[in-house]
Amino acid sequence: MPKKVDREQRRRQIAEAVLRLTAEQGLDAVSLRDVAAEAGVSMGMVQHYFTSKDRMLLFACAYMIERTNRRLQQQIAARPCPRSARATLRTVLVELLPLDEERRAGTRVWTAFLARAAVELDLEAFMRTTWVASHAFIADQIRSGQESGEIPAHVSPDRAAVRALALADGLVSHVLVGHYSATQALAAVDTYLDELFAGSSDS
Amino acid sequence: MPKKVDREQRRRQIAEAVLRLTAEQGLDAVSLRDVAAEAGVSMGMVQHYFTSKDRMLLFACAYMIERTNRRLQQQIAARPCPRSARATLRTVLVELLPLDEERRAGTRVWTAFLARAAVELDLEAFMRTTWVASHAFIADQIRSGQESGEIPAHVSPDRAAVRALALADGLVSHVLVGHYSATQALAAVDTYLDELFAGSSDS
Repeated sequence: MPKKVDREQRRRQIAEAVLRLTAEQGLDAVSLRDVAAEAGVSMGMVQHYFTSKDRMLLFACAYMIERTNRRLQQQIAARPCPRSARATLRTVLVELLPLDEERRAGTRVWTAFLARAAVELDLEAFMRTTWVASHAFIADQIRSGQESGEIPAHVSPDRAAVRALALADGLVSHVLVGHYSATQALAAVDTYLDELFAGSSDS
Repeated sequence: MPKKVDREQRRRQIAEAVLRLTAEQGLDAVSLRDVAAEAGVSMGMVQHYFTSKDRMLLFACAYMIERTNRRLQQQIAARPCPRSARATLRTVLVELLPLDEERRAGTRVWTAFLARAAVELDLEAFMRTTWVASHAFIADQIRSGQESGEIPAHVSPDRAAVRALALADGLVSHVLVGHYSATQALAAVDTYLDELFAGSSDS
């Protein structure tokens, strides 16, 4: 099956070019011509793999999310066992923040896709799916923290997940433009986790 | 001074065209040509009032913020006296959410500017200034809630303002793409305010 492998590899190569261009110059700069030049392939080849700019952007967005999730799973797996719910939740919330150049680039791309999702329904549906998965993961961690006795039983995992995700995504924008510092954002995450694990939040 | 009035009126007319186009089609769609057509003026006139696309966008963004602030002040002023800190804070946090078509359009525009701010320094500085003002306003409301005895003295106004603003801005994105419903977002705001006013948050 070498042909299929090549095909996927080529699509990823193009997606990486889209992500680099978007991180550096914003989505405005992403034309088929620029993507082809950045990926080192012909415009015809980009058109062969993606029938429209929107399909190319959707694939690039999915590819970015997949990469973020993989990095997140590696971060979680790297922590010593037994892993506490708190450590896992903190890893997820902190990993979303643009605290190094790689995550800053990822956040710039995510924000560009979010803006486009406001006027492009397929992308909007995709971002919603991504957030549904994040919400479910956070709620699951809270439930497992309740089973291990780390989080009081009266906390609502669902309501707490809304709060945790909103806190993280708000901080993402604020840190991106330099409104809040890394220190302020990390303090907000830790204070929130203190309250969640003490049972004084979303009870 | 009729000439100056005309000039400002004309700039606002162009800014409104920018905001309508951005809300409907995203910032990609905002060319000088399209803005001129939407505003019903010539391209030459747009270029006369704004020396570059970036300066036009910056003016449109500032105009939108000014309009939002005015609406917010009207909402606050419309509430019966004496106004509690809680009612004012709730008005601010809820008014930011895209819960009707006008605010949805505003949020689409804000998100588009945020994405562009990631690659355009003047706009980034402007958004930071806007958030600094929001943060200061929220912290002031918390301080006045402490003076009136509504909020316990041990709460840190500054840390609480970080949390409140992050919660609101996270929910803005989630509601915009339809990930969380209005009910979920309002419940998250109210639960947060319950905790803040009970002194169980950011203490």
